[in-house]
Amino acid sequence: MGRKASEPVCRAASPETRHVVIVGGGFAGINAAKALGNRKGVRVTLIDRNNYHLFQPLLYQVAMAALNGGEISYPLRKMLSMYRNITIYKGCVENVDAENRKVLTDFGEIGYDYLVLACGAKHHYFGHNEWESFAPGLKTIGQASEIRRRVMEAYERAERTQDPVEQKKLLSFVIVGGGPTGVELAGSIGEMSRYYLSKYYKNIDPRQTRIFIVHSGKRILNTFSPELSSRAARALEQLGVQIWTSSRVSGIDASGVQIGPEHIEAETVLWAAGVRATSIGKTMGFETDASNRIVVDDALSVKGHPEIFCGGDQARFELAGGEALPGLASVALQEGRAIGRNILRDIEGSPRQPFAYLDKGQMATIGKNMAIVEKGRLRLSGFPAWLVWLLVHIYFLSGFKHRFFVLLQWGWSYFTFGHAARIINREWRFYPENPDGP
Amino acid sequence: MGRKASEPVCRAASPETRHVVIVGGGFAGINAAKALGNRKGVRVTLIDRNNYHLFQPLLYQVAMAALNGGEISYPLRKMLSMYRNITIYKGCVENVDAENRKVLTDFGEIGYDYLVLACGAKHHYFGHNEWESFAPGLKTIGQASEIRRRVMEAYERAERTQDPVEQKKLLSFVIVGGGPTGVELAGSIGEMSRYYLSKYYKNIDPRQTRIFIVHSGKRILNTFSPELSSRAARALEQLGVQIWTSSRVSGIDASGVQIGPEHIEAETVLWAAGVRATSIGKTMGFETDASNRIVVDDALSVKGHPEIFCGGDQARFELAGGEALPGLASVALQEGRAIGRNILRDIEGSPRQPFAYLDKGQMATIGKNMAIVEKGRLRLSGFPAWLVWLLVHIYFLSGFKHRFFVLLQWGWSYFTFGHAARIINREWRFYPENPDGP
Repeated sequence: MGRKASEPVCRAASPETRHVVIVGGGFAGINAAKALGNRKGVRVTLIDRNNYHLFQPLLYQVAMAALNGGEISYPLRKMLSMYRNITIYKGCVENVDAENRKVLTDFGEIGYDYLVLACGAKHHYFGHNEWESFAPGLKTIGQASEIRRRVMEAYERAERTQDPVEQKKLLSFVIVGGGPTGVELAGSIGEMSRYYLSKYYKNIDPRQTRIFIVHSGKRILNTFSPELSSRAARALEQLGVQIWTSSRVSGIDASGVQIGPEHIEAETVLWAAGVRATSIGKTMGFETDASNRIVVDDALSVKGHPEIFCGGDQARFELAGGEALPGLASVALQEGRAIGRNILRDIEGSPRQPFAYLDKGQMATIGKNMAIVEKGRLRLSGFPAWLVWLLVHIYFLSGFKHRFFVLLQWGWSYFTFGHAARIINREWRFYPENPDGP
Repeated sequence: MGRKASEPVCRAASPETRHVVIVGGGFAGINAAKALGNRKGVRVTLIDRNNYHLFQPLLYQVAMAALNGGEISYPLRKMLSMYRNITIYKGCVENVDAENRKVLTDFGEIGYDYLVLACGAKHHYFGHNEWESFAPGLKTIGQASEIRRRVMEAYERAERTQDPVEQKKLLSFVIVGGGPTGVELAGSIGEMSRYYLSKYYKNIDPRQTRIFIVHSGKRILNTFSPELSSRAARALEQLGVQIWTSSRVSGIDASGVQIGPEHIEAETVLWAAGVRATSIGKTMGFETDASNRIVVDDALSVKGHPEIFCGGDQARFELAGGEALPGLASVALQEGRAIGRNILRDIEGSPRQPFAYLDKGQMATIGKNMAIVEKGRLRLSGFPAWLVWLLVHIYFLSGFKHRFFVLLQWGWSYFTFGHAARIINREWRFYPENPDGP
C-alpha cells in the first residue's frame, strides 16, 4: 500500500470533534452511523470488508436462484452519501489496541474516541470445521452463490448419469438445522422440485427429489409457539420435506450425513445449524459467552470500556431474566440506533440511556403463500402470514429502487412460477497451462 | 460419474431418426437447435459448459456494474423447453472422433449423425499468455465480475491510501484494443468517473481518473467508416478517454503497460484486443485460419466432412472476395439457423442451400446518448444512434422477461445516473485454517 502500518490513516481528531470508528456495515453498523450522520461534534469512519450492506434476511432467495445478489445488496457509499461527516473504507480490521484507542486494519492504524463493534456472526460447526467444505453455511453472497451452484449442478449431473443409485444421491439434499434459515432453504427446494423443475429435464423426474431437515431439538422453529411450529412442519411435509427431529449430526463427508447409527447418502448438504460471533471479543480479553458474543451492559457498551460499544449478532445483551436477545435484524437495527444515540448523549454531556428492545416479533416463510408470524400473542400462518412477511421484507429492503425491483421480480415469479436467476455462475480462474480454459 | 467413458450416454439413433449433436449454446448453437426443434425425423442433443445462454453484446454492462449477470443470461433448459426432441447436457466436449462419429465429453461418449460445432472464441494474447492475469478479457460472466471487482476495488484502494503517486496509478485504466468492446469499456469508465462516482468519495476526486485506449491500428473502430470512427473518438475524449493509436503493447505486468519505449503506470489493464477460436478444429485436423477458425464451405459444413457443420465465431465463412464474415451476433444467429435448415434438407432428401448473409449493419455505444450505427450507406451517430442501439439490444435480449427488466433497469439508471449493481462480489472460499474467514 506504500504506507507503513504504524502510520495513522486519519488525522488526530480536533479536541471538539469526537471520532467514532464503526466496524461492520450490517444492520447494527449502518444504524449507528445514521444516528451520528451530520451531527455536530462528531465524525465517523465506517469500515467493512465489503463495499455494500447486505439484506441478510433474503439471502436464502439468492441461494435458491429466486433473486440476484445485487438485488439484496446496497452500496454503503450510496446509502450514507448524504452524511458529510461519514468516511467509508473497504478493509479488514485485524485487531484493536484498546489501551491506545486504535484499530489495526489491513491498510493502517486508525485512532478513535469511540469504537462500535458490529462485526456480526458466521457459521459454527461445533468443533468440526472439517464439515465446512461439505456443508456450506449461508451468511454471504459468495456462499449463497456456492449453494445455488451446488443445488443446480446436482440436477445437471443427475440428468447426465443413467445410474439410478447415483441419481438418487444427487437428488438428495440434507439441511442441517431447523431454524428459520433451514426451513426457508428446505421449503424452497421442495417447492422448486415439485412445481417448477419437472418440465425441464428429460432423464430425471425432479419431483423425486428427497429433502431432509436434520434438527437436534424436539421440534423445528422452536422459538415459535408449538402450534405454529407444527403448522410449518405440516406445510413442509406437503412440499415433500422429511423432518428428522431429535437427530444430531455426527459426521458429514462426501458420501452424505451420519446421524448416530443412521446414514443418508446425499450429494448436497447445507449448514443452517449454528452461528458464532467473530473471535475479536475474546482476543481483546472482553467477557464473552459460549458463542463468542461480547457481553454488553444496559447502555450497550463493553464492561470496563465505556468508549467501546457492541451491537448486533456480535453482542450479548441480557434481558432482566438473564435471557439474551436473539440474532435478529430488528434487534441489530435497534441496538445500532441506540448506540449512536448514546454516543451523542455523551458528547452533549447528558447521561446514557439503557437500551430497551421493542419486540417486533418473528417470522419464517416456508413457500409461496405459506409463512408463520408470531408477535406476542398474535399468531398468523398460511397466506395472511405470507402477505405480512412479504410486506415487511419489501418495506425494510434498503433503498426504494431495490424494493421496487424485488417486488417486480417476485410478482413475476409468483405468476409464472419461474425462477429468475437460475443460472450457475462459474468464477473466472486463470489457467496458464491451458489457454482454451477449463 | 459411475460410468466408464467408453459407454455411450445415448442410445443409438433409430434408423429413421437422425441424431444431431450441437456443441455450444451461444447464438449459433441455439438457433441451429431452434431450427431443428420439434421437427420429424431428428433429435437433438445440445451440450454447453454452462447451463445458460449468454447475451454477450451486453457483457460489458455487467463488467461496468450497470446490469447483473443474471439479467443477460437465460437458462438453456427454459429457452428450449418447448422442443420435445431436444436434450440438454451441461458438460464439456473434450474431443471428437470424426471417424466413428462420436463426441467425447467429460461425462461419456455421445454418438451423432450430424455434428454442429459452435464453441465460439475466447481471448488471445498473441503469444503472451502471461499477460492474461494482469489484463483479463471479457467473454464470460466470471470475467465480467472480475473486471468489475478490479475497477471498483481500485477506487476503494485509492480512497484508503494517502500517497498521491499510488492514487494516480490506482485511478489509471488501460484498455488494450479499440474495437467495439474496448470503446464500450472505456466510455463506461469515463462516464462513471466523470458523472457518477465523484460524490461518493472523500479522499479522492474520481474525475481525475485517467483512461487510455491503446490501439495498434491507425484509428479506433476501423470496421466503421472514418467519419463515424472519428465521431466516436471525439465523444470518448469528451469523457476524458485518451486514445493512443498506432500503439502496440509490448509488455503488461503489475506496474502497467509498456508500449515500445513508452510506459503507463496503471493498476487495472483490460484486454479487448484479439480473439481466437478454441483449438478443437486444429486438433481434429480441419483446415483452420490463423485465428483457429474452421474454414467452412458455402453450406457451412466442414470440407471433407459433410456431416459436420460449424458456425459462429468458431467458423470462417468466406465471402466471394475471400473476406471472412466478422464475429458478430447477427452472423452467428444467421449461420446457426442456416445450419439447422440444411440438416433438415438433408433429411428430407432435398439439396443444401448455400448460406447468404443478410447484412444487419454494425453498431457501438460510447455512453449515454452516444452511439454509432452503420448499415451500408446509412450512418447514424449521437442520440438517434443510441436509441437504435437501445431498441435493437432490447429486442434481441432472449425472453420477454429479460427485456422488460433490463429496460426498467436502464430507464432507472438513465434518470438517476445510478449504477444499479455497483457491489463487489467476493467468491466464497474455504479457509480451514481460519474459521473466522479471511
